[in-house]
Amino acid sequence: MCHHCVIDAVKSDMLSRRSFFRGGLAAAAGAALAVAAPPAPLFAAETPTKAEDLTHELYDTFPTYFGGQQLFYDKKFDFAKDTFNLYELRVSEHTGTHIDAPLHFTADGKSVAELPVEDLIAPLVVIDIAAKAAENADAQVTPDDIKAWVDKNGDLPAGAVVAMHSGWGAHLGTEKFRNASADGKSLHFPGFHVEAAQYLIEQPSIKAIAVDTLSLDFGASPDFIVHKTWLSSGRYGIEGVANLGNVPAKGATIVVGAPKVRGGTGGPARIFALV
Amino acid sequence: MCHHCVIDAVKSDMLSRRSFFRGGLAAAAGAALAVAAPPAPLFAAETPTKAEDLTHELYDTFPTYFGGQQLFYDKKFDFAKDTFNLYELRVSEHTGTHIDAPLHFTADGKSVAELPVEDLIAPLVVIDIAAKAAENADAQVTPDDIKAWVDKNGDLPAGAVVAMHSGWGAHLGTEKFRNASADGKSLHFPGFHVEAAQYLIEQPSIKAIAVDTLSLDFGASPDFIVHKTWLSSGRYGIEGVANLGNVPAKGATIVVGAPKVRGGTGGPARIFALV
Repeated sequence: MCHHCVIDAVKSDMLSRRSFFRGGLAAAAGAALAVAAPPAPLFAAETPTKAEDLTHELYDTFPTYFGGQQLFYDKKFDFAKDTFNLYELRVSEHTGTHIDAPLHFTADGKSVAELPVEDLIAPLVVIDIAAKAAENADAQVTPDDIKAWVDKNGDLPAGAVVAMHSGWGAHLGTEKFRNASADGKSLHFPGFHVEAAQYLIEQPSIKAIAVDTLSLDFGASPDFIVHKTWLSSGRYGIEGVANLGNVPAKGATIVVGAPKVRGGTGGPARIFALV
Repeated sequence: MCHHCVIDAVKSDMLSRRSFFRGGLAAAAGAALAVAAPPAPLFAAETPTKAEDLTHELYDTFPTYFGGQQLFYDKKFDFAKDTFNLYELRVSEHTGTHIDAPLHFTADGKSVAELPVEDLIAPLVVIDIAAKAAENADAQVTPDDIKAWVDKNGDLPAGAVVAMHSGWGAHLGTEKFRNASADGKSLHFPGFHVEAAQYLIEQPSIKAIAVDTLSLDFGASPDFIVHKTWLSSGRYGIEGVANLGNVPAKGATIVVGAPKVRGGTGGPARIFALV
Protein backbone atom coordinates (compact mmCIF):
# COMPACT_ATOMS: atom_id res chain seq x y z
CA MET A 1 0.00 0.00 0.00
CA CYS A 2 1.54 3.33 -1.05
CA HIS A 3 2.01 6.19 1.38
CA HIS A 4 -0.98 8.08 0.01
CA CYS A 5 -3.08 4.92 0.12
CA VAL A 6 -2.22 4.47 3.80
CA ILE A 7 -3.26 8.05 4.45
CA ASP A 8 -6.49 7.49 2.51
CA ALA A 9 -7.13 4.28 4.43
CA VAL A 10 -6.62 6.12 7.70
CA LYS A 11 -8.91 8.91 6.55
CA SER A 12 -11.52 6.41 5.47
CA ASP A 13 -11.21 4.60 8.79
CA MET A 14 -11.51 7.86 10.66
CA LEU A 15 -14.50 8.88 8.59
CA SER A 16 -16.21 5.64 9.34
CA ARG A 17 -15.40 6.04 13.03
CA ARG A 18 -16.57 9.63 12.89
CA SER A 19 -20.04 8.56 11.84
CA PHE A 20 -20.08 6.44 14.99
CA PHE A 21 -18.14 8.85 17.09
CA ARG A 22 -18.82 7.18 20.41
CA GLY A 23 -15.51 6.86 22.14
CA GLY A 24 -13.77 9.66 20.27
CA LEU A 25 -10.17 9.79 21.40
CA ALA A 26 -10.28 6.28 22.79
CA ALA A 27 -11.62 4.89 19.53
CA ALA A 28 -9.01 6.74 17.54
CA ALA A 29 -6.24 5.54 19.83
CA GLY A 30 -7.44 1.99 19.34
CA ALA A 31 -7.17 2.12 15.55
CA ALA A 32 -3.89 0.48 14.60
CA LEU A 33 -3.28 2.74 11.62
CA ALA A 34 -4.35 5.89 13.39
CA VAL A 35 -2.16 5.86 16.48
CA ALA A 36 -0.48 9.11 15.55
CA ALA A 37 -3.49 10.72 13.89
CA PRO A 38 -5.66 13.19 15.77
CA PRO A 39 -9.34 12.29 16.14
CA ALA A 40 -11.45 13.48 13.22
CA PRO A 41 -13.40 16.65 13.92
CA LEU A 42 -17.20 16.64 14.15
CA PHE A 43 -17.31 19.20 11.35
CA ALA A 44 -16.50 18.24 7.81
CA ALA A 45 -15.05 21.53 6.66
CA GLU A 46 -13.94 24.56 8.61
CA THR A 47 -14.76 25.14 12.25
CA PRO A 48 -18.15 26.87 12.36
CA THR A 49 -18.29 30.60 13.05
CA LYS A 50 -22.05 31.12 13.26
CA ALA A 51 -25.23 29.39 14.41
CA GLU A 52 -28.45 29.74 12.48
CA ASP A 53 -31.72 28.88 14.24
CA LEU A 54 -33.66 26.40 12.12
CA THR A 55 -36.58 26.41 14.58
CA HIS A 56 -39.87 28.28 14.30
CA GLU A 57 -41.26 29.77 17.49
CA LEU A 58 -44.10 27.51 18.65
CA TYR A 59 -47.42 29.10 19.62
CA ASP A 60 -50.90 27.81 20.29
CA THR A 61 -52.26 28.53 16.82
CA PHE A 62 -49.18 27.30 14.96
CA PRO A 63 -50.60 25.69 11.81
CA THR A 64 -51.00 21.92 11.95
CA TYR A 65 -51.37 19.15 9.41
CA PHE A 66 -54.76 18.11 10.76
CA GLY A 67 -55.92 21.71 11.12
CA GLY A 68 -56.84 21.75 14.81
CA GLN A 69 -55.01 23.40 17.65
CA GLN A 70 -52.18 21.22 19.01
CA LEU A 71 -50.64 23.30 21.83
CA PHE A 72 -52.51 24.39 24.95
CA TYR A 73 -51.20 26.37 27.94
CA ASP A 74 -52.39 25.88 31.52
CA LYS A 75 -50.80 28.36 33.93
CA LYS A 76 -50.31 26.48 37.20
CA PHE A 77 -48.32 29.15 39.07
CA ASP A 78 -48.34 32.91 38.60
CA PHE A 79 -45.62 35.32 39.67
CA ALA A 80 -47.97 37.88 41.25
CA LYS A 81 -49.55 35.29 43.48
CA ASP A 82 -46.92 32.55 43.79
CA THR A 83 -43.59 34.41 43.22
CA PHE A 84 -42.94 32.29 40.14
CA ASN A 85 -44.51 31.41 36.79
CA LEU A 86 -45.03 27.87 35.50
CA TYR A 87 -47.14 26.39 32.74
CA GLU A 88 -48.30 22.89 32.13
CA LEU A 89 -48.40 22.35 28.37
CA ARG A 90 -50.55 19.95 26.42
CA VAL A 91 -49.01 19.34 23.02
CA SER A 92 -49.19 16.85 20.20
CA GLU A 93 -45.78 15.40 19.47
CA HIS A 94 -46.15 16.44 15.83
CA THR A 95 -46.41 20.21 16.20
CA GLY A 96 -44.18 23.07 15.07
CA THR A 97 -40.59 22.35 14.08
CA HIS A 98 -40.48 18.71 15.11
CA ILE A 99 -39.12 15.20 14.71
CA ASP A 100 -40.78 12.16 13.15
CA ALA A 101 -39.13 9.12 14.77
CA PRO A 102 -39.33 5.74 13.00
CA LEU A 103 -41.94 4.72 15.63
CA HIS A 104 -44.32 7.33 14.20
CA PHE A 105 -45.07 5.08 11.22
CA THR A 106 -43.96 1.63 12.40
CA ALA A 107 -45.14 -0.88 14.98
CA ASP A 108 -41.85 -1.04 16.85
CA GLY A 109 -39.28 1.26 15.26
CA LYS A 110 -36.96 3.51 17.22
CA SER A 111 -38.63 6.04 19.48
CA VAL A 112 -37.41 9.63 19.49
CA ALA A 113 -35.45 8.90 22.69
CA GLU A 114 -33.68 6.03 20.94
CA LEU A 115 -32.25 8.07 18.07
CA PRO A 116 -28.47 7.79 18.50
CA VAL A 117 -26.73 11.05 19.39
CA GLU A 118 -24.45 10.51 16.40
CA ASP A 119 -27.52 10.76 14.15
CA LEU A 120 -28.44 14.16 15.62
CA ILE A 121 -25.27 15.99 14.54
CA ALA A 122 -24.69 15.72 10.82
CA PRO A 123 -23.60 17.44 7.63
CA LEU A 124 -26.57 19.40 6.26
CA VAL A 125 -27.47 19.16 2.58
CA VAL A 126 -29.99 21.73 1.36
CA ILE A 127 -31.88 20.91 -1.83
CA ASP A 128 -33.41 24.14 -3.11
CA ILE A 129 -36.67 23.62 -4.99
CA ALA A 130 -38.04 27.09 -4.19
CA ALA A 131 -38.27 28.10 -7.86
CA LYS A 132 -40.46 25.18 -8.88
CA ALA A 133 -42.45 25.36 -5.62
CA ALA A 134 -43.27 29.01 -6.37
CA GLU A 135 -44.80 27.81 -9.65
CA ASN A 136 -46.48 24.71 -8.26
CA ALA A 137 -47.54 24.19 -4.64
CA ASP A 138 -47.57 20.41 -5.27
CA ALA A 139 -43.86 20.38 -6.19
CA GLN A 140 -41.79 17.46 -4.90
CA VAL A 141 -38.09 16.76 -4.40
CA THR A 142 -37.19 14.17 -7.03
CA PRO A 143 -34.08 12.06 -7.62
CA ASP A 144 -33.20 14.55 -10.39
CA ASP A 145 -33.16 17.39 -7.85
CA ILE A 146 -30.72 15.41 -5.72
CA LYS A 147 -28.57 14.53 -8.74
CA ALA A 148 -28.51 18.22 -9.72
CA TRP A 149 -27.24 19.03 -6.21
CA VAL A 150 -24.51 16.38 -6.59
CA ASP A 151 -23.52 17.72 -10.01
CA LYS A 152 -23.02 21.16 -8.47
CA ASN A 153 -21.66 20.26 -5.02
CA GLY A 154 -20.07 16.83 -5.26
CA ASP A 155 -21.16 13.61 -3.58
CA LEU A 156 -23.64 13.68 -0.74
CA PRO A 157 -21.57 13.84 2.48
CA ALA A 158 -21.50 10.63 4.49
CA GLY A 159 -24.11 10.66 7.24
CA ALA A 160 -25.91 13.73 5.94
CA VAL A 161 -29.32 15.12 6.80
CA VAL A 162 -30.94 16.08 3.47
CA ALA A 163 -33.32 19.04 3.67
CA MET A 164 -35.87 20.36 1.20
CA HIS A 165 -35.86 24.15 0.96
CA SER A 166 -39.11 24.99 -0.79
CA GLY A 167 -39.36 28.53 0.53
CA TRP A 168 -42.59 27.56 2.31
CA GLY A 169 -41.47 29.04 5.62
CA ALA A 170 -42.24 32.47 4.18
CA HIS A 171 -45.93 31.50 4.18
CA LEU A 172 -46.10 30.79 7.91
CA GLY A 173 -48.79 33.00 9.43
CA THR A 174 -50.83 32.91 6.23
CA GLU A 175 -53.37 30.43 4.90
CA LYS A 176 -50.86 29.40 2.24
CA PHE A 177 -48.73 27.49 4.77
CA ARG A 178 -51.39 24.74 4.92
CA ASN A 179 -52.92 25.80 1.59
CA ALA A 180 -56.12 23.79 1.99
CA SER A 181 -58.38 23.33 -1.00
CA ALA A 182 -61.72 25.19 -1.02
CA ASP A 183 -63.51 22.06 0.18
CA GLY A 184 -60.88 21.53 2.89
CA LYS A 185 -60.25 17.99 1.70
CA SER A 186 -56.70 18.38 0.41
CA LEU A 187 -53.58 20.37 1.31
CA HIS A 188 -51.15 21.82 -1.17
CA PHE A 189 -47.53 22.29 -0.16
CA PRO A 190 -44.24 20.71 -1.29
CA GLY A 191 -42.59 17.57 0.07
CA PHE A 192 -40.31 14.69 -0.88
CA HIS A 193 -41.30 12.37 -3.73
CA VAL A 194 -41.19 8.71 -2.72
CA GLU A 195 -38.61 8.05 -5.45
CA ALA A 196 -36.30 10.60 -3.80
CA ALA A 197 -36.80 8.87 -0.45
CA GLN A 198 -35.97 5.52 -2.06
CA TYR A 199 -32.93 7.04 -3.79
CA LEU A 200 -31.64 8.38 -0.46
CA ILE A 201 -32.26 5.06 1.31
CA GLU A 202 -29.96 3.47 -1.27
CA GLN A 203 -27.16 5.87 -0.28
CA PRO A 204 -24.90 4.42 2.40
CA SER A 205 -25.58 6.57 5.43
CA ILE A 206 -28.16 9.34 5.05
CA LYS A 207 -29.53 9.91 8.54
CA ALA A 208 -32.65 11.97 8.01
CA ILE A 209 -34.71 14.02 5.61
CA ALA A 210 -36.10 17.40 6.56
CA VAL A 211 -38.76 19.70 5.11
CA ASP A 212 -39.80 23.32 5.62
CA THR A 213 -43.47 22.31 5.33
CA LEU A 214 -45.99 20.40 7.47
CA SER A 215 -45.16 16.93 6.10
CA LEU A 216 -42.38 14.82 4.63
CA ASP A 217 -44.95 13.92 1.95
CA PHE A 218 -46.27 16.71 -0.24
CA GLY A 219 -49.58 18.04 1.04
CA ALA A 220 -51.74 16.41 -1.62
CA SER A 221 -50.34 12.92 -0.94
CA PRO A 222 -53.19 10.48 -0.45
CA ASP A 223 -51.20 7.81 1.37
CA PHE A 224 -48.21 9.09 3.46
CA ILE A 225 -46.01 6.95 1.22
CA VAL A 226 -42.84 8.93 2.02
CA HIS A 227 -43.50 8.67 5.76
CA LYS A 228 -44.04 4.94 5.40
CA THR A 229 -41.02 4.35 3.15
CA TRP A 230 -38.54 6.57 4.96
CA LEU A 231 -39.45 5.95 8.61
CA SER A 232 -39.77 2.18 8.14
CA SER A 233 -36.17 2.21 6.86
CA GLY A 234 -35.15 3.14 10.44
CA ARG A 235 -34.30 6.76 9.62
CA TYR A 236 -35.98 9.83 11.03
CA GLY A 237 -37.54 12.95 9.59
CA ILE A 238 -37.80 16.63 10.52
CA GLU A 239 -40.82 18.77 9.64
CA GLY A 240 -41.38 22.52 9.78
CA VAL A 241 -37.70 23.47 9.58
CA ALA A 242 -37.11 27.25 9.52
CA ASN A 243 -34.59 29.54 7.84
CA LEU A 244 -33.11 27.06 5.37
CA GLY A 245 -32.67 30.00 3.00
CA ASN A 246 -30.01 31.35 5.37
CA VAL A 247 -27.68 28.35 5.20
CA PRO A 248 -25.47 27.16 2.35
CA ALA A 249 -26.40 24.23 0.10
CA LYS A 250 -23.37 22.40 1.52
CA GLY A 251 -20.96 22.79 4.41
CA ALA A 252 -23.23 23.49 7.39
CA THR A 253 -23.61 21.06 10.29
CA ILE A 254 -27.10 20.47 11.66
CA VAL A 255 -27.52 19.93 15.42
CA VAL A 256 -30.92 18.39 16.14
CA GLY A 257 -32.11 18.96 19.69
CA ALA A 258 -34.67 16.17 19.52
CA PRO A 259 -36.74 15.64 22.66
CA LYS A 260 -35.67 12.60 24.68
CA VAL A 261 -39.13 11.41 25.73
CA ARG A 262 -39.26 7.69 26.42
CA GLY A 263 -41.36 5.92 23.81
CA GLY A 264 -42.09 9.15 21.98
CA THR A 265 -42.96 9.06 18.28
CA GLY A 266 -41.33 12.46 17.75
CA GLY A 267 -41.77 15.89 19.20
CA PRO A 268 -40.98 19.59 19.00
CA ALA A 269 -37.23 20.06 18.66
CA ARG A 270 -34.71 22.88 18.79
CA ILE A 271 -32.53 22.77 15.72
CA PHE A 272 -29.43 24.75 14.80
CA ALA A 273 -27.22 24.89 11.75
CA LEU A 274 -23.59 25.60 12.55
CA VAL A 275 -22.10 27.37 9.55
CA MET B 1 -1.79 52.66 19.15
CA CYS B 2 1.04 50.12 18.99
CA HIS B 3 0.95 47.11 16.67
CA HIS B 4 0.08 44.72 19.49
CA CYS B 5 -2.59 47.09 20.73
CA VAL B 6 -4.19 47.11 17.27
CA ILE B 7 -4.15 43.32 17.24
CA ASP B 8 -5.67 43.26 20.71
CA ALA B 9 -8.31 45.76 19.63
CA VAL B 10 -9.19 43.57 16.65
CA LYS B 11 -9.31 40.49 18.86
CA SER B 12 -11.49 42.32 21.36
CA ASP B 13 -13.75 43.49 18.55
CA MET B 14 -13.97 39.96 17.15
CA LEU B 15 -14.68 38.55 20.59
CA SER B 16 -17.43 41.04 21.11
CA ARG B 17 -18.85 40.26 17.68
CA ARG B 18 -18.51 36.56 18.38
CA SER B 19 -20.69 36.84 21.43
CA PHE B 20 -23.29 38.40 19.14
CA PHE B 21 -22.37 36.27 16.20
CA ARG B 22 -25.41 37.16 14.12
CA GLY B 23 -24.11 38.08 10.71
CA GLY B 24 -20.90 36.10 10.92
CA LEU B 25 -18.85 36.70 7.81
CA ALA B 26 -20.79 39.83 6.91
CA ALA B 27 -20.27 41.34 10.34
CA ALA B 28 -16.58 40.50 10.25
CA ALA B 29 -16.23 41.97 6.76
CA GLY B 30 -17.91 45.12 7.96
CA ALA B 31 -15.45 45.68 10.79
CA ALA B 32 -12.94 48.25 9.59
CA LEU B 33 -10.07 46.74 11.54
CA ALA B 34 -10.95 43.18 10.71
CA VAL B 35 -11.12 43.22 6.93
CA ALA B 36 -8.34 40.68 6.57
CA ALA B 37 -9.16 38.61 9.67
CA PRO B 38 -11.18 35.41 9.38
CA PRO B 39 -14.35 35.22 11.46
CA ALA B 40 -13.78 33.84 14.93
CA PRO B 41 -14.78 30.19 15.32
CA LEU B 42 -17.71 29.21 17.54
CA PHE B 43 -15.41 26.94 19.51
CA ALA B 44 -12.78 28.41 21.76
CA ALA B 45 -10.20 25.66 21.48
CA GLU B 46 -9.90 22.79 19.05
CA THR B 47 -12.65 21.70 16.71
CA PRO B 48 -14.81 19.18 18.59
CA THR B 49 -14.45 15.49 17.82
CA LYS B 50 -17.20 14.03 19.99
CA ALA B 51 -20.68 14.82 21.29
CA GLU B 52 -21.75 13.89 24.80
CA ASP B 53 -25.46 13.78 25.60
CA LEU B 54 -26.12 15.90 28.68
CA THR B 55 -29.83 14.96 28.66
CA HIS B 56 -31.63 12.40 30.80
CA GLU B 57 -34.31 10.36 29.12
CA LEU B 58 -37.67 11.77 30.23
CA TYR B 59 -40.36 9.36 31.46
CA ASP B 60 -43.65 9.70 33.30
CA THR B 61 -42.26 8.98 36.74
CA PHE B 62 -39.11 11.06 36.32
CA PRO B 63 -38.52 12.57 39.78
CA THR B 64 -39.80 16.10 40.25
CA TYR B 65 -39.11 18.93 42.68
CA PHE B 66 -42.71 19.00 43.89
CA GLY B 67 -42.92 15.21 44.02
CA GLY B 68 -45.93 14.65 41.80
CA GLN B 69 -46.02 13.21 38.29
CA GLN B 70 -45.33 15.89 35.65
CA LEU B 71 -45.50 13.98 32.34
CA PHE B 72 -48.60 12.22 31.03
CA TYR B 73 -49.07 10.36 27.74
CA ASP B 74 -52.33 10.25 25.79
CA LYS B 75 -52.11 8.01 22.72
CA LYS B 76 -54.28 9.66 20.07
CA PHE B 77 -53.39 7.38 17.15
CA ASP B 78 -52.21 3.77 17.19
CA PHE B 79 -50.30 2.00 14.42
CA ALA B 80 -52.42 -1.17 14.49
CA LYS B 81 -55.65 0.76 14.00
CA ASP B 82 -54.55 4.01 12.33
CA THR B 83 -51.31 3.03 10.47
CA PHE B 84 -49.36 5.51 12.61
CA ASN B 85 -48.59 6.29 16.25
CA LEU B 86 -49.00 9.70 17.88
CA TYR B 87 -49.14 10.88 21.47
CA GLU B 88 -50.44 14.04 22.98
CA LEU B 89 -48.25 14.86 25.97
CA ARG B 90 -49.14 16.86 29.05
CA VAL B 91 -46.01 18.10 30.72
CA SER B 92 -44.94 20.72 33.21
CA GLU B 93 -42.31 23.00 31.73
CA HIS B 94 -40.02 22.22 34.67
CA THR B 95 -39.55 18.48 34.21
CA GLY B 96 -36.53 16.35 33.39
CA THR B 97 -33.43 17.98 31.95
CA HIS B 98 -34.87 21.45 31.41
CA ILE B 99 -34.44 25.21 31.16
CA ASP B 100 -35.40 27.88 33.69
CA ALA B 101 -35.94 31.07 31.67
CA PRO B 102 -35.78 34.44 33.45
CA LEU B 103 -39.61 34.57 33.17
CA HIS B 104 -39.82 31.60 35.57
CA PHE B 105 -39.01 33.87 38.53
CA THR B 106 -39.77 37.36 37.22
CA ALA B 107 -42.88 39.29 36.22
CA ASP B 108 -41.69 40.05 32.72
CA GLY B 109 -38.24 38.59 32.08
CA LYS B 110 -37.25 36.79 28.90
CA SER B 111 -39.31 33.76 28.01
CA VAL B 112 -37.58 30.57 26.90
CA ALA B 113 -38.34 31.47 23.28
CA GLU B 114 -36.62 34.82 23.73
CA LEU B 115 -33.25 33.44 24.85
CA PRO B 116 -30.83 34.59 22.14
CA VAL B 117 -29.33 31.78 20.06
CA GLU B 118 -25.88 33.10 20.95
CA ASP B 119 -26.65 32.31 24.61
CA LEU B 120 -27.45 28.68 23.75
CA ILE B 121 -23.99 27.76 22.43
CA ALA B 122 -21.26 28.50 24.92
CA PRO B 123 -18.03 27.37 26.54
CA LEU B 124 -18.87 24.88 29.29
CA VAL B 125 -17.23 25.21 32.71
CA VAL B 126 -17.69 22.22 35.02
CA ILE B 127 -17.25 22.85 38.76
CA ASP B 128 -16.78 19.46 40.40
CA ILE B 129 -18.11 19.35 43.98
CA ALA B 130 -18.78 15.60 43.92
CA ALA B 131 -16.38 14.89 46.79
CA LYS B 132 -18.03 17.26 49.24
CA ALA B 133 -21.53 16.35 47.98
CA ALA B 134 -20.78 12.69 48.77
CA GLU B 135 -20.09 13.78 52.34
CA ASN B 136 -22.97 16.25 52.62
CA ALA B 137 -26.17 16.19 50.56
CA ASP B 138 -26.69 19.88 51.39
CA ALA B 139 -23.39 20.88 49.75
CA GLN B 140 -23.39 24.07 47.69
CA VAL B 141 -21.16 25.60 45.02
CA THR B 142 -19.44 28.55 46.71
CA PRO B 143 -17.30 31.39 45.36
CA ASP B 144 -14.30 29.44 46.69
CA ASP B 145 -15.21 26.48 44.48
CA ILE B 146 -15.24 28.80 41.47
CA LYS B 147 -11.95 30.40 42.50
CA ALA B 148 -10.40 26.95 42.88
CA TRP B 149 -11.51 26.17 39.32
CA VAL B 150 -9.90 29.40 38.11
CA ASP B 151 -6.67 28.65 39.97
CA LYS B 152 -6.48 25.32 38.18
CA ASN B 153 -7.88 26.19 34.75
CA GLY B 154 -7.39 29.92 34.24
CA ASP B 155 -10.02 32.64 33.91
CA LEU B 156 -13.64 31.71 33.30
CA PRO B 157 -14.11 31.78 29.51
CA ALA B 158 -16.11 34.73 28.21
CA GLY B 159 -19.76 33.83 27.74
CA ALA B 160 -19.54 30.54 29.62
CA VAL B 161 -22.25 28.30 31.01
CA VAL B 162 -21.09 27.27 34.50
CA ALA B 163 -22.25 23.83 35.60
CA MET B 164 -22.25 22.16 39.00
CA HIS B 165 -21.17 18.52 38.84
CA SER B 166 -22.24 17.07 42.18
CA GLY B 167 -22.42 13.47 41.00
CA TRP B 168 -26.15 13.49 41.79
CA GLY B 169 -27.08 12.05 38.39
CA ALA B 170 -25.91 8.67 39.69
CA HIS B 171 -28.85 8.72 42.13
CA LEU B 172 -31.52 9.05 39.42
CA GLY B 173 -33.92 6.13 39.79
CA THR B 174 -33.41 6.02 43.55
CA GLU B 175 -35.02 7.93 46.41
CA LYS B 176 -31.73 9.75 46.92
CA PHE B 177 -32.23 11.88 43.82
CA ARG B 178 -34.94 13.91 45.64
CA ASN B 179 -33.69 12.80 49.05
CA ALA B 180 -36.77 13.95 50.96
CA SER B 181 -36.63 14.11 54.74
CA ALA B 182 -38.62 11.52 56.71
CA ASP B 183 -41.44 14.01 57.21
CA GLY B 184 -41.36 14.91 53.51
CA LYS B 185 -40.99 18.60 54.33
CA SER B 186 -37.48 19.17 53.03
CA LEU B 187 -35.31 17.91 50.17
CA HIS B 188 -31.59 17.32 50.41
CA PHE B 189 -29.45 17.62 47.29
CA PRO B 190 -26.71 20.05 46.20
CA GLY B 191 -27.10 23.35 44.37
CA PHE B 192 -25.51 26.77 43.93
CA HIS B 193 -24.99 29.02 46.93
CA VAL B 194 -26.44 32.51 46.42
CA GLU B 195 -22.96 34.00 46.91
CA ALA B 196 -21.70 31.93 43.97
CA ALA B 197 -24.61 33.20 41.88
CA GLN B 198 -23.78 36.77 42.87
CA TYR B 199 -20.09 36.18 42.12
CA LEU B 200 -20.93 34.89 38.64
CA ILE B 201 -23.30 37.81 37.98
CA GLU B 202 -20.36 40.12 38.64
CA GLN B 203 -18.34 38.38 35.89
CA PRO B 204 -18.72 40.07 32.53
CA SER B 205 -20.64 37.60 30.46
CA ILE B 206 -21.64 34.33 32.13
CA LYS B 207 -24.75 33.15 30.26
CA ALA B 208 -26.22 30.45 32.46
CA ILE B 209 -25.71 28.19 35.44
CA ALA B 210 -26.52 24.50 35.29
CA VAL B 211 -27.01 21.77 37.89
CA ASP B 212 -27.23 17.97 37.84
CA THR B 213 -29.98 18.10 40.49
CA LEU B 214 -33.63 19.16 40.64
CA SER B 215 -33.00 22.82 41.45
CA LEU B 216 -30.51 25.67 41.01
CA ASP B 217 -30.90 26.15 44.78
CA PHE B 218 -29.82 23.33 47.05
CA GLY B 219 -32.75 21.15 48.05
CA ALA B 220 -33.03 22.43 51.60
CA SER B 221 -33.25 26.07 50.50
CA PRO B 222 -36.25 27.72 52.14
CA ASP B 223 -36.58 30.62 49.72
CA PHE B 224 -35.42 29.93 46.12
CA ILE B 225 -32.89 32.71 46.62
CA VAL B 226 -30.59 31.47 43.81
CA HIS B 227 -33.53 31.25 41.39
CA LYS B 228 -34.57 34.77 42.34
CA THR B 229 -31.08 36.24 42.20
CA TRP B 230 -29.88 34.54 39.04
CA LEU B 231 -33.01 34.61 36.89
CA SER B 232 -33.85 38.21 37.78
CA SER B 233 -30.40 39.15 36.45
CA GLY B 234 -31.69 38.18 32.99
CA ARG B 235 -29.69 34.97 32.75
CA TYR B 236 -31.10 31.46 32.45
CA GLY B 237 -30.59 28.19 34.28
CA ILE B 238 -30.49 24.50 33.41
CA GLU B 239 -31.62 21.78 35.82
CA GLY B 240 -31.23 18.01 35.71
CA VAL B 241 -28.17 17.99 33.45
CA ALA B 242 -26.80 14.49 32.79
CA ASN B 243 -23.34 13.02 32.28
CA LEU B 244 -21.26 15.98 33.45
CA GLY B 245 -18.73 13.45 34.72
CA ASN B 246 -17.97 12.57 31.10
CA VAL B 247 -16.86 16.05 30.01
CA PRO B 248 -13.71 17.97 30.91
CA ALA B 249 -13.66 20.79 33.48
CA LYS B 250 -12.79 23.16 30.64
CA GLY B 251 -12.77 23.10 26.85
CA ALA B 252 -16.16 21.63 25.93
CA THR B 253 -18.87 23.62 24.18
CA ILE B 254 -22.44 23.23 25.39
CA VAL B 255 -25.26 23.34 22.83
CA VAL B 256 -28.58 23.95 24.57
CA GLY B 257 -31.58 22.81 22.55
CA ALA B 258 -34.02 24.91 24.55
CA PRO B 259 -37.66 24.64 23.52
CA LYS B 260 -38.89 27.67 21.56
CA VAL B 261 -42.38 27.89 23.05
CA ARG B 262 -43.80 31.41 22.94
CA GLY B 263 -44.11 32.86 26.44
CA GLY B 264 -42.71 29.70 28.01
CA THR B 265 -41.01 29.90 31.41
CA GLY B 266 -38.66 27.05 30.49
CA GLY B 267 -39.08 23.50 29.33
CA PRO B 268 -37.50 20.13 28.68
CA ALA B 269 -34.42 20.61 26.50
CA ARG B 270 -31.97 18.47 24.55
CA ILE B 271 -28.46 19.37 25.53
CA PHE B 272 -25.13 18.28 24.09
CA ALA B 273 -21.53 18.94 25.00
CA LEU B 274 -19.21 19.05 22.02
CA VAL B 275 -15.78 17.96 23.20
